[in-house]
Amino acid sequence: MALTDYKPGLEGVVAAQTRMSMVDGQAGVLVIGGFLLEELALNATFEETVFLLWNDRLPNAVELKDFRQQLASRRELPPIAFDVLRAAAAQKAPVMDALRMAGSTLSLRTAGESLDGVDANHRDALVAVARFPTIVAAYWRILNGQEPIKPRADLNHAANYLYMIFGEEPTAERTRGMETYLNTVIDHGLNASTFTARVIVATQSDIISSVIGAVGALKGPLHGGAPGPALDMVFEVGSEENAEPVLRKIIERGDRLMGFGHRVYKVRDPRADVLATAAVRLFERGGDMKLYNLARHVEKVALRLLEEYKPGRNLQTNVEFFTALILHGLGLETDLFAPTFAVSRVGGWTAHCFEQIGEGRLIRPQSIYTGPQDRKWVAVEKR
Amino acid sequence: MALTDYKPGLEGVVAAQTRMSMVDGQAGVLVIGGFLLEELALNATFEETVFLLWNDRLPNAVELKDFRQQLASRRELPPIAFDVLRAAAAQKAPVMDALRMAGSTLSLRTAGESLDGVDANHRDALVAVARFPTIVAAYWRILNGQEPIKPRADLNHAANYLYMIFGEEPTAERTRGMETYLNTVIDHGLNASTFTARVIVATQSDIISSVIGAVGALKGPLHGGAPGPALDMVFEVGSEENAEPVLRKIIERGDRLMGFGHRVYKVRDPRADVLATAAVRLFERGGDMKLYNLARHVEKVALRLLEEYKPGRNLQTNVEFFTALILHGLGLETDLFAPTFAVSRVGGWTAHCFEQIGEGRLIRPQSIYTGPQDRKWVAVEKR
Repeated sequence: MALTDYKPGLEGVVAAQTRMSMVDGQAGVLVIGGFLLEELALNATFEETVFLLWNDRLPNAVELKDFRQQLASRRELPPIAFDVLRAAAAQKAPVMDALRMAGSTLSLRTAGESLDGVDANHRDALVAVARFPTIVAAYWRILNGQEPIKPRADLNHAANYLYMIFGEEPTAERTRGMETYLNTVIDHGLNASTFTARVIVATQSDIISSVIGAVGALKGPLHGGAPGPALDMVFEVGSEENAEPVLRKIIERGDRLMGFGHRVYKVRDPRADVLATAAVRLFERGGDMKLYNLARHVEKVALRLLEEYKPGRNLQTNVEFFTALILHGLGLETDLFAPTFAVSRVGGWTAHCFEQIGEGRLIRPQSIYTGPQDRKWVAVEKR
Repeated sequence: MALTDYKPGLEGVVAAQTRMSMVDGQAGVLVIGGFLLEELALNATFEETVFLLWNDRLPNAVELKDFRQQLASRRELPPIAFDVLRAAAAQKAPVMDALRMAGSTLSLRTAGESLDGVDANHRDALVAVARFPTIVAAYWRILNGQEPIKPRADLNHAANYLYMIFGEEPTAERTRGMETYLNTVIDHGLNASTFTARVIVATQSDIISSVIGAVGALKGPLHGGAPGPALDMVFEVGSEENAEPVLRKIIERGDRLMGFGHRVYKVRDPRADVLATAAVRLFERGGDMKLYNLARHVEKVALRLLEEYKPGRNLQTNVEFFTALILHGLGLETDLFAPTFAVSRVGGWTAHCFEQIGEGRLIRPQSIYTGPQDRKWVAVEKR
């Protein structure tokens, strides 16, 4: 094989065909399950979006009720998952690690769980989507010295997640804010975690193994781990008049402005606008409009300064900036941002698993060897 | 992006440069850490091979003693790992699932574990290599109604693994057999599990997350899950005179002869010869030479019949055939074959993680969207 075949980072290599989502970074367009993001994310419940990705169409009323019930009835964790979460909390393990540890036990059946009539992959996918919120919320409460709250089957997925974190039923506006966030980040082409899930399941492994591998990839700061700092920057600015001097200082000392620029999008990330719309709706109803206005001001100044310092680079606000704003608006601390991303993305991972299983083919690239080939064994006492 | 850029299964695409191993499938050559496989595998202890992959050279006597101690002192599991194994055993979960579940908790420190002076990645790599055998052996015993056996720090890695499974110190021949097996399968180019580990760690995630993803990939029958059936075929044959009629029947009903043919090797898999050498040494000293001779006879007949029924395909004995033979010779049941593969391969995964971390680059291919782009939202009651 010629060295020229090497594609560092697999950049530009197409590794899958998918009907899940289309990312057009030049045009700033994101299609999810056949819908423009803005058409889907602001309207659908999370259950509808997951059904859409799994089935390539929206459910009718009967199907939606059934699908909600299938998920809601699987929300409770087996006791061993709580044991793992308590052991992790005793060492203050990061939330993503706790999700990987407890999530890994989801292959185990809960008491009374019947596997009759459900194929193993479908069972795993339902369980993963249904229980990720329970794990994250339970761990968060244990970590903060509170008792976990049992899921409520009468609440929809997004509302129940907020309920399990905060212990009170969320308002319709807060639920809608969470739905929109979960819908917005559920899928995004062949990102590193989705790719991980596909590589794993392509060996004919199981879906729990796949999504747990994906959680590991999402944990990395180069993938899912960076939405916190964007908000920290807004807090550091603190007031509108500080925006310009603070941001200039950050740029001039050579640091990145967190929340701006994206590997794929060369124009505005379409998710930013959807989340901005969701954020303003959320903040208008009893939220912190001051923070919202400050964030928008910081954004405006940042875009102007980026154009001044890095002309032609066309750095735009990315999804992290508005993720931080909306999740903060929902009362989530920054340590919950990446795990909440996982609560959404597991819908995409499972859908990609089904699609990859349909392909029925191993994903197995090549490597180029760069070492010597002729070393000779020398006994340890002669080394 | 043109549809023609799509590389199904990433076949022929080079996704990494590596100094870990070189697989030349045309020539039937495998180089590991600069050594021809046969030069390394039959001589080295597993600790030396892991050191070699991590450091690109063999250790001297002082370094080897130190490295052995670093691993041996990290063999014991935290209590939560046992809790997980007992919960898994109560449901008779597959060993690979139990390894993924308990392995996922290895981010947690054991009582008294100091992280001073050890960088987090190095700690994770040591812990993963040191504790995979403990997890597998403990789970196997729990699953079979026996108490787990505490690791012994005075035994080397391979001997201790056998000791923890069987409860007695292995003979030098048995230890040597296990060393050779562990060395032989520690690395093999960019196989699916190694690739998984690299994709995960490339996001700047951690090494426990990476190897746990890799365990998930190795679990799949298209990757690590197939050495059992090769031996089942030998048992099915039962006696030398049965070999030809039984194998003919298998081929004529259209089934694969397990243990023959490989995606990469077009000539004899070099690992087969090394494991055959190790097997004969093991069986000669008090092992079951009858089984060994039967297996070699079955192999000879199988190769002849494959040439007769599939002329020109040049199907050769692969690593699975002799893996089955040597692990069976060591007294391992077939359910332990894939987990023992993981006990070895984690040495390669961790080495690839270090190498990938040095690259400092996300692995992020592209996908082609095959769905519609213009669906319009319809409220659920109108669907």
